[in-house]
Amino acid sequence: MKSHITNAISDFFCEYETPRQVLVRNRRVGVVCRLIQLGVLAYIIVWVFIYEKGYQSTDTAVSSVFTKMKGVGYTNVSGEERVWDVADYVFPSQGDASFVVMTNYIITEGQKMGKCPELPGKHHCSSGSDCEGGRYKRQMTGVCVNTTKTCEVLAWCPVEDDSKIPDPPLLMSAENYTLFIKNSVTFPTFKVSRSNLVEGIDKNYIGNCLHDPKTAPLCPIFRLGDIVKMSGFSFETIAKVGGAIGIVIDWTCNFDVDVRKCKPTYEFHGLYGNPDEKDDVRASVGYNFRYAKHYLEDKVQKRTLLKVFGIRFDIIVQSLARKFDIIPTLTAIGSGVGIFGVATVVCDLMMLYLLPKREFYKNMKFKYTESQTQDPDSEAGSTETEASNK
Amino acid sequence: MKSHITNAISDFFCEYETPRQVLVRNRRVGVVCRLIQLGVLAYIIVWVFIYEKGYQSTDTAVSSVFTKMKGVGYTNVSGEERVWDVADYVFPSQGDASFVVMTNYIITEGQKMGKCPELPGKHHCSSGSDCEGGRYKRQMTGVCVNTTKTCEVLAWCPVEDDSKIPDPPLLMSAENYTLFIKNSVTFPTFKVSRSNLVEGIDKNYIGNCLHDPKTAPLCPIFRLGDIVKMSGFSFETIAKVGGAIGIVIDWTCNFDVDVRKCKPTYEFHGLYGNPDEKDDVRASVGYNFRYAKHYLEDKVQKRTLLKVFGIRFDIIVQSLARKFDIIPTLTAIGSGVGIFGVATVVCDLMMLYLLPKREFYKNMKFKYTESQTQDPDSEAGSTETEASNK
Amino acid sequence: MKSHITNAISDFFCEYETPRQVLVRNRRVGVVCRLIQLGVLAYIIVWVFIYEKGYQSTDTAVSSVFTKMKGVGYTNVSGEERVWDVADYVFPSQGDASFVVMTNYIITEGQKMGKCPELPGKHHCSSGSDCEGGRYKRQMTGVCVNTTKTCEVLAWCPVEDDSKIPDPPLLMSAENYTLFIKNSVTFPTFKVSRSNLVEGIDKNYIGNCLHDPKTAPLCPIFRLGDIVKMSGFSFETIAKVGGAIGIVIDWTCNFDVDVRKCKPTYEFHGLYGNPDEKDDVRASVGYNFRYAKHYLEDKVQKRTLLKVFGIRFDIIVQSLARKFDIIPTLTAIGSGVGIFGVATVVCDLMMLYLLPKREFYKNMKFKYTESQTQDPDSEAGSTETEASNK
Repeated sequence: MKSHITNAISDFFCEYETPRQVLVRNRRVGVVCRLIQLGVLAYIIVWVFIYEKGYQSTDTAVSSVFTKMKGVGYTNVSGEERVWDVADYVFPSQGDASFVVMTNYIITEGQKMGKCPELPGKHHCSSGSDCEGGRYKRQMTGVCVNTTKTCEVLAWCPVEDDSKIPDPPLLMSAENYTLFIKNSVTFPTFKVSRSNLVEGIDKNYIGNCLHDPKTAPLCPIFRLGDIVKMSGFSFETIAKVGGAIGIVIDWTCNFDVDVRKCKPTYEFHGLYGNPDEKDDVRASVGYNFRYAKHYLEDKVQKRTLLKVFGIRFDIIVQSLARKFDIIPTLTAIGSGVGIFGVATVVCDLMMLYLLPKREFYKNMKFKYTESQTQDPDSEAGSTETEASNK
Repeated sequence: MKSHITNAISDFFCEYETPRQVLVRNRRVGVVCRLIQLGVLAYIIVWVFIYEKGYQSTDTAVSSVFTKMKGVGYTNVSGEERVWDVADYVFPSQGDASFVVMTNYIITEGQKMGKCPELPGKHHCSSGSDCEGGRYKRQMTGVCVNTTKTCEVLAWCPVEDDSKIPDPPLLMSAENYTLFIKNSVTFPTFKVSRSNLVEGIDKNYIGNCLHDPKTAPLCPIFRLGDIVKMSGFSFETIAKVGGAIGIVIDWTCNFDVDVRKCKPTYEFHGLYGNPDEKDDVRASVGYNFRYAKHYLEDKVQKRTLLKVFGIRFDIIVQSLARKFDIIPTLTAIGSGVGIFGVATVVCDLMMLYLLPKREFYKNMKFKYTESQTQDPDSEAGSTETEASNK
Repeated sequence: MKSHITNAISDFFCEYETPRQVLVRNRRVGVVCRLIQLGVLAYIIVWVFIYEKGYQSTDTAVSSVFTKMKGVGYTNVSGEERVWDVADYVFPSQGDASFVVMTNYIITEGQKMGKCPELPGKHHCSSGSDCEGGRYKRQMTGVCVNTTKTCEVLAWCPVEDDSKIPDPPLLMSAENYTLFIKNSVTFPTFKVSRSNLVEGIDKNYIGNCLHDPKTAPLCPIFRLGDIVKMSGFSFETIAKVGGAIGIVIDWTCNFDVDVRKCKPTYEFHGLYGNPDEKDDVRASVGYNFRYAKHYLEDKVQKRTLLKVFGIRFDIIVQSLARKFDIIPTLTAIGSGVGIFGVATVVCDLMMLYLLPKREFYKNMKFKYTESQTQDPDSEAGSTETEASNK
């Protein structure tokens, strides 16, 4: 029994089966077939391996982003001078990946809870019955104020008048603020971590540099005016009504080469359309939100309401790393071999159905397990061909 | 020499090799094999190509989300009327993708830094030794206050009493607030950008619409009560203790058709379990946080502490775009051909080991490089068959 | 006509073609070829299927994270005692995935808008001409103040003096704060949702547990000191100048087994380098931001400016789920068959070009469609071999 198994194993290792093939010598089918095969080979080598780098597996990164603004703004509204520092114009203050820089505002100071008429021109009323509670999404008291012909509401009084947006924007000086971005990415599959403060971007360099797509593409300090310009906006319009800008940090890395060559690129683009467009039906223009500072004055709770117009920055990290991996390589080769098989099938179809000598080739290629009544001659022809080879 | 190479190239292009095949005429093996082959073909065409769209490559988007709440809340606590506008009830105010809408609160006004006893019933003490520093995660002074039988602590005084959550929730009016979502997505591989303000969702439409899964599925304005209902909560319970709701914006797009057909769908689901469940051992119910407003009164720093119960909305963008790509197409075809090869192997095994005429087929299929002592007859049979074909 | 089609179908189902093969009995080529084939098979089974789980498709999750800090800090600055609770030391207060815990601060109280000289030693001036507007990114008034020999600026006065960072850090007690993380993940392709409050992590458990990598790896409550230690920092240094720590929640799940086995693991690592390093040219050390509390005093707007040094926590959710899928399985098998084809090609090349009997094997394998003038003998040899088999 043991020798039986040994024999079987020995047989297994001494034998080797390989398909028998017909070598068809025919110019037409040969040229077509070789061209198809070369095409498949070129596709696999050039396209899959060189162009699309099919021998690599890919990974995207998890990332974290911190930001820090610098710069001081200055306003002079009817003689009242004041400066705006980082604690005043950045929302939120702790340096998130998504933040707003105030560029314009409508301030309503000294609001306190009470009853006051709505702004003239808002919702015209002629009697108290026009001012039923809940209409117009306000807390109505049911009184129509004679002087303004508007309903009285329970609200923070005086109510905000945001009909006129200051023009030019009050904080045009925002153009010269600078933004410092720290970004760390980790590719979990490849266990590689990188920071946008790459080799050579040290303390001294950062102290003096300013990002420029050509001369300083790796400097992580950006002038706001430059960002706005690069994203295709005019600073004055975006500063007036607000807007949203995406800062894309692109990490496209190839870890088959030195990991230090993995460096970020920065791109800037406006989100939700350009306010310069004169499209009056555009769905939603500008960017603003309301923000309140509360205080106590003479034991009364009051607040200063700011309608903040500003540039909202969204820092978006986009990443794609590649590294050699045996599995995609062999999958690409394996399915490439399969496509080679397709090429053979195409050539066979051509040979067996299109060529004048197709019956001859059919008999060369196929051997039948029983004599076929349909075409006994071609069968005979086949064996005759074999005979003639002798 | 040159003619030698030319000859070789000429030979290469005139020759074409194709495998020789046995055409087995046997109903049983034929039917089985054809069914397997048709099955493989059907799998490749129907499943891989039509159902799973294996001819397409995929991409996920990078996205940015802005939100804006509208609506006014109203409370009447022991006669004191007040309204709550967006600047009061949204945290944070600048319209992030993740934000909280306050629906209930416990207010502790006029806190100042000082020494006061803990709430009665919290940590009973009988003497100062029970009140050593650091116990109970409070800053103890080592004094046991007689009147309350609790330890004295250094804290913002008076200490907050959050044992009773207002019921019904104070800001039930939150049900009628509306939420406006702006979402922009970019598919980097396909270089396509889309916004949830798709074609047809213009200024006029947005001014009047309200999201409804059936009648207005693309309207980006949502009533809070509707969102809560669609995510399976009862508004009253979630408003009382707070909760978390995920708003999933799903971009499943096929860029082989018109890019304008790429539209978002909105889904709502509760995160971390439903507070309606009567599960007392559930790990963590509700959602709340503490928020302080600081002010100065008579030169003394004071603060108003709000324990905010609210609905936390997390806007989650989920995206999957597909587009025709030559590589997955050919990989699918190539590996499909490979599976065809598996079908042949299965049929061969059946033919060579299961059929009664297996020895006959074996000799049809195989040719041996040397005469085999084991079965000379079948060898002979094979050649006889060939002879009988003549 | 109909019978013609029926015949064709009948023929199709009764026929079956299988390649004819040469069974080469040669030890050298047999062993090499079998080893290659076994290698390919081992690669497919062991590597692709068992190690890399090539029979599964993958999915990443969308997630939402909430956090909640607990603990009270205590400072005693020149006799003035005060405590810091969650509403004071966490930014932002609503429990985001990215937040800052204040550990040290420089406070500048009672700032009001006005004109005051810059700090001595900052930018030396000798006359007003040194103080032109806009230099040094400050709003200069053009006056050089004699007493300090610095320029007068329009600013929140008095200006902040952040030259000395309190050492030891004022809020060392932050070490004992605890952080509670709630994380919910959804794998959209597999339609599975999980929360980090997995089975068994109920209210009672959470009330008492504290995360420990060995004894309580699933407890979602973390002591700040532990996190800092596990991420490789010294608490005292990071508390002094601030720093950034990434908390990675890793969901690596196999949905072919019980979904309840899908549990998170927590990892901690410092972002952007360790402040313990004595590298003076490091690009950016520490983490801080400025934060202002506004109030009104005697009708004058004032603010308290805090330069906050703190630990910034970024909670990063990393996910990869796997589940059996027919498509990657069959793609792996199909391309595996293709690689088998490569093995045959290698063995054929060896047999046809390297072996001494290569001409013999060539004639066994190939059949020519016309008599070849180059080597008529080998052709004859081929047919003789067939004859000798009889």
